[in-house]
Amino acid sequence: MAAAIRALAMDAVQAANSGHPGAPMGMADIAVALWSRHLRHNPADPAWVDRDRFVLSNGHGSMLIYALLHLSGYALPMDELRAFRQLHSKTPGHPEVGITPGIETTTGPLGQGISNAVGMALAEKLLAAEFNRPGHALVDHRTYAFLGDGCLMEGISHEACALAGAWKLNKLIAIYDDNGISIDGQVQPWFVDDTPARFKAYGWQVIGPVDGHDVDAVDAAIAQAKTSVDQPVLIVAKTHIGKGSPNRANTAKAHGEPLGAEEIAKTREAIGWPHAPFEVPAEVYAAWDAKARGGALQASWQQGFEAYAAAHPELAEAFLRRMAGDLPADFAEIAVEAVGAAHDKAETVATRKASQIALEHFTARLPELLGGSADLTGSNLTNTNSTPAFRVDAAGAVVRTESGAIGRHINYGVREFGMAAIMNGVALHGGYIPYGGTFLTFSDYSRNAIRMAALMKLRVIHVFTHDSIGLGEDGPTHQSVEHAASLRLIPGLDVWRPADTCETAVAWTLALANKHRPSALLLSRQNLPYAPRTDADVITRGAYVLAEPSEVGLDKPAKAVILATGSEVQIALHAQAALAQAKIPVRVVSLPSTTVFDRQDAAYKSEVLPPKLPRIAIEAGVSDFWWKYGCAAVVGLDSFGESAPAGALFKHFGFTSENLVATVRKVLGK
Amino acid sequence: MAAAIRALAMDAVQAANSGHPGAPMGMADIAVALWSRHLRHNPADPAWVDRDRFVLSNGHGSMLIYALLHLSGYALPMDELRAFRQLHSKTPGHPEVGITPGIETTTGPLGQGISNAVGMALAEKLLAAEFNRPGHALVDHRTYAFLGDGCLMEGISHEACALAGAWKLNKLIAIYDDNGISIDGQVQPWFVDDTPARFKAYGWQVIGPVDGHDVDAVDAAIAQAKTSVDQPVLIVAKTHIGKGSPNRANTAKAHGEPLGAEEIAKTREAIGWPHAPFEVPAEVYAAWDAKARGGALQASWQQGFEAYAAAHPELAEAFLRRMAGDLPADFAEIAVEAVGAAHDKAETVATRKASQIALEHFTARLPELLGGSADLTGSNLTNTNSTPAFRVDAAGAVVRTESGAIGRHINYGVREFGMAAIMNGVALHGGYIPYGGTFLTFSDYSRNAIRMAALMKLRVIHVFTHDSIGLGEDGPTHQSVEHAASLRLIPGLDVWRPADTCETAVAWTLALANKHRPSALLLSRQNLPYAPRTDADVITRGAYVLAEPSEVGLDKPAKAVILATGSEVQIALHAQAALAQAKIPVRVVSLPSTTVFDRQDAAYKSEVLPPKLPRIAIEAGVSDFWWKYGCAAVVGLDSFGESAPAGALFKHFGFTSENLVATVRKVLGK
Repeated sequence: MAAAIRALAMDAVQAANSGHPGAPMGMADIAVALWSRHLRHNPADPAWVDRDRFVLSNGHGSMLIYALLHLSGYALPMDELRAFRQLHSKTPGHPEVGITPGIETTTGPLGQGISNAVGMALAEKLLAAEFNRPGHALVDHRTYAFLGDGCLMEGISHEACALAGAWKLNKLIAIYDDNGISIDGQVQPWFVDDTPARFKAYGWQVIGPVDGHDVDAVDAAIAQAKTSVDQPVLIVAKTHIGKGSPNRANTAKAHGEPLGAEEIAKTREAIGWPHAPFEVPAEVYAAWDAKARGGALQASWQQGFEAYAAAHPELAEAFLRRMAGDLPADFAEIAVEAVGAAHDKAETVATRKASQIALEHFTARLPELLGGSADLTGSNLTNTNSTPAFRVDAAGAVVRTESGAIGRHINYGVREFGMAAIMNGVALHGGYIPYGGTFLTFSDYSRNAIRMAALMKLRVIHVFTHDSIGLGEDGPTHQSVEHAASLRLIPGLDVWRPADTCETAVAWTLALANKHRPSALLLSRQNLPYAPRTDADVITRGAYVLAEPSEVGLDKPAKAVILATGSEVQIALHAQAALAQAKIPVRVVSLPSTTVFDRQDAAYKSEVLPPKLPRIAIEAGVSDFWWKYGCAAVVGLDSFGESAPAGALFKHFGFTSENLVATVRKVLGK
Repeated sequence: MAAAIRALAMDAVQAANSGHPGAPMGMADIAVALWSRHLRHNPADPAWVDRDRFVLSNGHGSMLIYALLHLSGYALPMDELRAFRQLHSKTPGHPEVGITPGIETTTGPLGQGISNAVGMALAEKLLAAEFNRPGHALVDHRTYAFLGDGCLMEGISHEACALAGAWKLNKLIAIYDDNGISIDGQVQPWFVDDTPARFKAYGWQVIGPVDGHDVDAVDAAIAQAKTSVDQPVLIVAKTHIGKGSPNRANTAKAHGEPLGAEEIAKTREAIGWPHAPFEVPAEVYAAWDAKARGGALQASWQQGFEAYAAAHPELAEAFLRRMAGDLPADFAEIAVEAVGAAHDKAETVATRKASQIALEHFTARLPELLGGSADLTGSNLTNTNSTPAFRVDAAGAVVRTESGAIGRHINYGVREFGMAAIMNGVALHGGYIPYGGTFLTFSDYSRNAIRMAALMKLRVIHVFTHDSIGLGEDGPTHQSVEHAASLRLIPGLDVWRPADTCETAVAWTLALANKHRPSALLLSRQNLPYAPRTDADVITRGAYVLAEPSEVGLDKPAKAVILATGSEVQIALHAQAALAQAKIPVRVVSLPSTTVFDRQDAAYKSEVLPPKLPRIAIEAGVSDFWWKYGCAAVVGLDSFGESAPAGALFKHFGFTSENLVATVRKVLGK
């Protein structure tokens, strides 16, 4: 069975003339132990909600999982393996969720797969606590992750694995492919960590080292790991990278290069695999076939689910709804209430507070909302009355409030990247909609996980507060300048920078409604006045006419358009009023989400931004971004900020209505 | 002495009505032990090259270091402390290098300060190995870092501290402010790491826990730490955050809020500090004053230096030059040779290879170049014949080659963020110009450290290879789409995306010559043809006319301008030729560095991009960026890539001369 993996891996890499044979060949025996003796999954239904999750954190070893999926009976025919790494095949260079049946997460950027796995195990633990009832173990599965030296060197592994220990995620089992080789060679000079000691320091159980080429030894280790009651488990498996290749095994060359025809021939002989490339004997297929066992497992679970549904019909319905990622049937009404309340109250608050007000409303009605913050809860305002803090007791059980509720707000600690990747794992698992907060500037730390959420089309919501120099005294290390613009460049990510409570409520509504898209909400530290408007619906279009000249008493058509976002919208309105005094009519367009606006039809776009009117943008951030809207001038900030009170900084950097008025007049030549 | 720190911290935070009193008050006693009994520094000359380095990694505790600098005699008068966190004061909210004398690095983004400290200690170790001679310990100082729970939770602390252990940086001493509190409260639910065990797993010596309020105990721990011969040292000091405040000590509220007038009055009483705010008695000043001791230390070192200079005049001169950050006197010639060689050979190679060719030249002539890669040496091509791998032996000594040379290329392991922050530390220390490589997409991982280099104005050079879909089969997780554009948004960072060997050599030249600016070089995986040109000097302007219509046989003035970078320049040249066949004359402008071009004078800019000619940009990345150049059309990529051979992807996504020709024709309406 292991030889089949080795052969498929080396042959597919050779056919593609690119790829990574070393990890699949080195981990083949471990894969036999896990996939044929432990993993509970059903190749006929990769979406079975109670399946074990399997994550290949060392995603470059993608041929390992493609071979496993093919051999065990997933809808991944041999032709797809032949087309490894070719355009539109189901076998891309790194595993991609949504492309290949049975792939649970997209991996490749090292350290993130294991962090996704932590999120999956967290979701399992929480769902089990929320839905299981005596006699009904509705949610009861494990999360397995394979990982290599690279994942363990990455800082994010520290963040995520420390949290797994703190949360006592005993159903998380990671298997470390300890082969002592990374791309630059034998790791000794740059990787001397005592990894078992490190993981014990996080509160993990560590098993091994075991011989990773001894299937029974790995099997026994996994069996032992499954008995853990209050600790995640790391199994250290000593392996030889490229095992089976007489000349490439144990070398860095095995990692990321085809073996070559000659070495492949020698390897065929060494591993006793006389079959042609992409040929697998029937008895090997039979040994791997997991369809019957998987079908039986799922049928048994289904039977259990039906008993559960009979006993707890509402819970069963809620469970299915949430695992499907559907919002409550009355979500539209819930959203209208949230936006309407903001509109009616017309409060002057910081948009981070506006976010909390909206969250207060949504978390009360959507039990799937799972909040959190990277140690800035009181600043990000991500917590609400409906979201008690998530805690586990000494035995690892989820702590309940007096009313029996489980925690729904997570203290991630100062771990932005880990938080983001864990949220991706939660979203991949299903059952919860994760959101988490930090300061906008520290979106830098989590940036690649935000990108991964966009690539995977996950509904993950980032609450980024303290969104500009408006945070004041903490100074340039904490002041975002380029962040709004650079987040907008990530394909598939919706970015919101609302101006007041109403725009913030709409931002939350769309972020929740976008099932297949992550969102980032950029929120002010400082108070912002409510911007009066008659129609809140139009905010859903991302940009809209907030104020025509008539609203400041000038009955003339606008001669220019001011584009503004977030805290600068109030400056735009003041400038509009001042210009009206000088009989210069301008329109103010608020653009809480340029990414949403960019998806509107051309007619709406030119309605909001009439082609013939000159445009002047203002945003307390880099100006480069705004030229895409054909601006004649941009009031922006193309240097770092300074440490001073917010008011002093806005003045210092020219974010004043006086400066905006002067800019508009210059553009109009009057 | 400690009470003076506590009083200054609480009073300054109160005066600013913002800031973080908890850490300075909690670490005051530790600071007394280190600063008054161990730290070798001279307040009169913060630039003394052999001073001990001190890093406040928990930078929010900035009032601690401002108090220390003021009290020990640096040019930081009391008026500056009174102006804490005010515009243009020398006491910004977080410590900033270049603003305040005695600040070694800008801290605030957690985990990076300790990583900078690792870089400083690395630089010290390497410089000592390179310059010290028997009887002459020219370079012999320590690096001290204070850090808190937040720094230890951040993933980057894992990356940097693991490397410090692997490198056996025995002169690095970190003191952990173990107060059990982070912003969200008592850390127990989210931070259960056994930190001493974790650091031992990295190969560190761990001392303590000691009582962080017992100056003698901390003093003894530091004395013991200084005896370490082959391990970095972590001193765990148990403290009470906000120590001295009767009601705020040991609470999260002490962390980041002013104590308030009432609590300050109570604290004054509790710590026995009857003096008015910002008043320090003469005897306290006298106890803190480090000027005499510092002056004597430096004088003694200077005497040693003069003996060294007498014995080794060339080494002494080289040492001073390098510590001053000056390039060799013949740098201009060296650069001309590098660029000239590229021009003469006119090779078709990948620009990552072109970078290695340039580096081969520069590293042979500039001994201060210190290369490295995050485990992608053979892909980034950051190593050269002049840069053997940096290694230490079992005793911690720097390994030498047979010819006696020390290592100058660092295997950072898979630790992009750690690498970037360590490079910042190396640059801050002085003596080396660090450069390091990874794939461009993983610049996401290190993004905030790149930003910090720009904020600090450090000459750090990032070699980002595999810069687009051109990397091919590894797929969208590895393919940069938004990265070139988003790096260009970081203020103060120069971004280069060269098209061939000549542009690459110029990029290296400017990156090296820019003493106060970091650079990022975005380089192709795939081969790129040499772009013939007569004048290579003009490349230094960031953008230039590469080919007029006359060069493709059309003697008419251009009717449009194609803007292109990197691998798309060849497509532009092909399109130009094809358009010439149709009698449509266009100019091709190559923009290897938009950031450099943006700093040119208006006359040059309009010479290159005549205002009246329509512009069409092509770059294999997001299109948004290019509208700033007033383009009529942009051939870009606004979605993620795919896994396939590079050629197939370029075609699939429309990066072909045919598509570019069609786009130009559409713009011109012909």
